Amino acid sequence: MISNLNISRRKLLTLSSAAVAGLSVNQLLSKAYAQEIQKSIAFSLPMLDTVVTPTLDNPIRLNFNENALGMSPNAKQAAINAIPKANRYAKAEMPLLNKKLGQHHNVEDDHILLTAGSSEGIRSAIEAFCIPNTQLVIPELTYSDGEHFAKIFNLKITKVSCLTDWQIDLRSIKKAVDEFNGFSIVYLVNPNNPTSTVFKANELESWITSAPKNMIFIVDEAYAEFVNDPDFHSVDSLISNGAENVVLLKTFSKIHAMAGLRVGYVISSPNNIKNIAQYVAGEKLNYCGVCAALASMDDSQFLTYSKKAIDVSRTIMEQVLSELGLQYLKSETNFMFHKTPIDLQKYRELLQQNCVLVGRDFDPATNWCRISLGTPGEMLYVANLMRGLRENKTI
Amino acid sequence: MISNLNISRRKLLTLSSAAVAGLSVNQLLSKAYAQEIQKSIAFSLPMLDTVVTPTLDNPIRLNFNENALGMSPNAKQAAINAIPKANRYAKAEMPLLNKKLGQHHNVEDDHILLTAGSSEGIRSAIEAFCIPNTQLVIPELTYSDGEHFAKIFNLKITKVSCLTDWQIDLRSIKKAVDEFNGFSIVYLVNPNNPTSTVFKANELESWITSAPKNMIFIVDEAYAEFVNDPDFHSVDSLISNGAENVVLLKTFSKIHAMAGLRVGYVISSPNNIKNIAQYVAGEKLNYCGVCAALASMDDSQFLTYSKKAIDVSRTIMEQVLSELGLQYLKSETNFMFHKTPIDLQKYRELLQQNCVLVGRDFDPATNWCRISLGTPGEMLYVANLMRGLRENKTI
Repeated sequence: MISNLNISRRKLLTLSSAAVAGLSVNQLLSKAYAQEIQKSIAFSLPMLDTVVTPTLDNPIRLNFNENALGMSPNAKQAAINAIPKANRYAKAEMPLLNKKLGQHHNVEDDHILLTAGSSEGIRSAIEAFCIPNTQLVIPELTYSDGEHFAKIFNLKITKVSCLTDWQIDLRSIKKAVDEFNGFSIVYLVNPNNPTSTVFKANELESWITSAPKNMIFIVDEAYAEFVNDPDFHSVDSLISNGAENVVLLKTFSKIHAMAGLRVGYVISSPNNIKNIAQYVAGEKLNYCGVCAALASMDDSQFLTYSKKAIDVSRTIMEQVLSELGLQYLKSETNFMFHKTPIDLQKYRELLQQNCVLVGRDFDPATNWCRISLGTPGEMLYVANLMRGLRENKTI
Repeated sequence: MISNLNISRRKLLTLSSAAVAGLSVNQLLSKAYAQEIQKSIAFSLPMLDTVVTPTLDNPIRLNFNENALGMSPNAKQAAINAIPKANRYAKAEMPLLNKKLGQHHNVEDDHILLTAGSSEGIRSAIEAFCIPNTQLVIPELTYSDGEHFAKIFNLKITKVSCLTDWQIDLRSIKKAVDEFNGFSIVYLVNPNNPTSTVFKANELESWITSAPKNMIFIVDEAYAEFVNDPDFHSVDSLISNGAENVVLLKTFSKIHAMAGLRVGYVISSPNNIKNIAQYVAGEKLNYCGVCAALASMDDSQFLTYSKKAIDVSRTIMEQVLSELGLQYLKSETNFMFHKTPIDLQKYRELLQQNCVLVGRDFDPATNWCRISLGTPGEMLYVANLMRGLRENKTI
């Protein structure tokens, strides 16, 4: 089997632009489409017609929902410019980022808390609301950090089953809160990870605005900038309108492609921010991250490019998954959740042997796979690989 | 007064190398001395004979114990090289840093926990040992983060008075532990901040090795690499010999000049490390910091230079403080603690008007000032400024 795949890989490695144009994704990659995208952005999109050629030592990394494009060139330069100053604390620049984020989300500076990535936001927000007799309510299938920290803080953890096809059951989550005789922290990732689906804004907002006092919503919108569904709203507008029961977590790791620079932030009422700030270590962020974040926020062309590239990559994956008859959830993020044709562990190993790394197990979704969306060129390789594996009847 | 000082500053700004050679620090700055230092290091020491000329907009920053030299050139290059990769998490590089630190301190990898600066180390170490009926025992004059986090975690805080001249009273600290009917966290900064003094190794080590089970030592050795006193030992050897009751906190902020890159670490037994790791946000460090730390550890020439430059700066300050008859504590760090000739707040304002920023209040040491040691060139400016202020009878 492996030798067959090697042949298949060799074939892929030699694919030219012309060969790519002959693929079934040719409509997507047509000159007209590329030109339409190109019109709206200043960047060239070279990856559109070039299949990436990974190796076992340099695989395509689709396992951590990172942004494969790399940072905005302006952000990279800002990070480089920060290095000669990085013997000092970023005491002058942190307030600038704080202010800029406040303006971006239409809130005052005191509604923002900078954190070392959103991991620190999740930990500190949960810790801030740990009072005796508190439960954390989460969907059974969501990002693991909420549950991880709730366990450490000895919270009761209430997991709510999903509907069919891993749709989040907001009504049952609400019921779990109503039935609990204590304080509830509801941790919602929107769009959700690993399912990549969004909550209906009207349903979520009407719950938040009518919720009782014995609960807080922690809403993690790490992937919000990738969403196309017009029915998605950020909860930031609720906070700017004075809501006291919502904590919004954000990150520069995804659309800004800055996962390795560890910049995140919390948006909430000043009271909540003061409370959460107690559990943050010194409110000191790294100089390169702060300066890169400031530059990246101003680089709207890069942000447009970042979203469009994911849109193209998603279309490539949707096409091949449909071709192969593999069920997938409609993705609103830079990753997709699809049913595997074989046992998940074997599927992951098979892809790894072919230089593609995909996501870990997400219990209880046995044999569903989370695959991050890399560059279009990377996804063309993946799509061709999957077709080759189907031809070989390996999957 | 201000106009006089302006004249004095203008005079300083025009000081040439030759003028500096005529100063009373000329012996220190003599060619012979410079050559002796130069022999042992690959770096040139241009600041040795050049007085730095600050402005109000670009003052000499001696207020946060930062390392004014800037990072090692190798560390800077490593941080630059990391930027194109910083769209991803530093998952491959963090274990390399962990391993290297283990080798450096003669412990296995599982004795090391990377943290976002030592602030995260202090917070997580204190939190890990918060059981009911716990006190934090600290000298009345020490780094504030321990007390800050202990308050948040609702610990009883026991502050132990210093001896004369702010010497740390280890015997009374031990007594405060012995007399408490519960668990004690003893937080010791060694060398201490803001006093810059060290604990006698034999006294501290004999207490640690014979201590009862109802306590833990958190020892913060942020400044250890600057120490000249041969009677100082790191507690790392106790940990490598199996001690379970010591948590050592370290940072790349000081001797490595990486304050803005937020890299710290904890050294302790594997059990303690597992416990503390629970309170660290995701164990993810920024890519630039991790790569710079790896490079800086290998740059022994820079580390030698970093220490020698501080030794020169310290000598310059010792000389001017002695000349002016201002009492100071023997410094083992990159800062000094001296008695102010006038009210501390007025002294700080006066120095600020002359483009020099110094440390905040450290209660209860009224009218003692912490001044960080900048480059020798910066300290020459400060020394000359202080002489000028004395000539003017301003101080």
